Amino acid sequence: MDEANDVVVELLLVEDNPSDLELTLHALKRNNVTNRIHVARDGAEALDFLFGNGEQAGHIGRRAPRVVLLDLKLPLVDGLEVLRRIKADERTQQIPVVVLTSSREERDLVESYRLGVNSYIVKPVDFAQFTEAIRQIGYYWSILNEAPVV
Amino acid sequence: MDEANDVVVELLLVEDNPSDLELTLHALKRNNVTNRIHVARDGAEALDFLFGNGEQAGHIGRRAPRVVLLDLKLPLVDGLEVLRRIKADERTQQIPVVVLTSSREERDLVESYRLGVNSYIVKPVDFAQFTEAIRQIGYYWSILNEAPVV
Repeated sequence: MDEANDVVVELLLVEDNPSDLELTLHALKRNNVTNRIHVARDGAEALDFLFGNGEQAGHIGRRAPRVVLLDLKLPLVDGLEVLRRIKADERTQQIPVVVLTSSREERDLVESYRLGVNSYIVKPVDFAQFTEAIRQIGYYWSILNEAPVV
Repeated sequence: MDEANDVVVELLLVEDNPSDLELTLHALKRNNVTNRIHVARDGAEALDFLFGNGEQAGHIGRRAPRVVLLDLKLPLVDGLEVLRRIKADERTQQIPVVVLTSSREERDLVESYRLGVNSYIVKPVDFAQFTEAIRQIGYYWSILNEAPVV
């Protein structure tokens, strides 16, 4: 997690569930995908991180993360609204957003793609499969994918 | 490759370079990612496959592929134009498109994201790394990612 305000953040992880958060961070760090992770525990924190909150400038305008991993069921501002805000603003719309959710509801899938999500992943229930999925997702977006020039 | 016209195609591979094509098919099939691959060797073939060509209906309206792997430097219709057409048509805009290219030119990267590409991958030059990248890409989009309802 970034301590100093000006550390380059490569991955913005938006997750409120403590056990999913711990597992995800563990899987990303164990595989050395990236240590430059910022965690937002609700949708408002995620939007503040990107756009600023009046007191503080957001990370756009400095350097955007290479990818946003976004849970959907979040306190304060839900994940679909965070996605809508990111994809509606020309300063952030190119940042890859991966929905990472427990939801198998078709309306979440449909709405996410309608809003322009880059990828939609249902969290595996099994512990080992969850860890392996996170490893693959982290590798894919942090190393394989060329991030946009934002 | 699909022989019959009504076989469900999971992956549309748009590639004109014979050796890259052979390597890509080999990597996808060896790893059992999917056998349901349709190959288009230029941009016009890719568009015909999706949209039809007057004589024959395209695959949209039946069942769209889960992902399109798209080279950029293509004969007849180039990859950026294929991407533009896919992302400009509401019948196809949700289909995940991954640019898979040798180009490290920033204008290709910028234009691809501007047009709405889901992911942009530069082909590794090294044989083993190329094969491994294709394996990861195939697994990610054919198995891990939930395809849109198209």
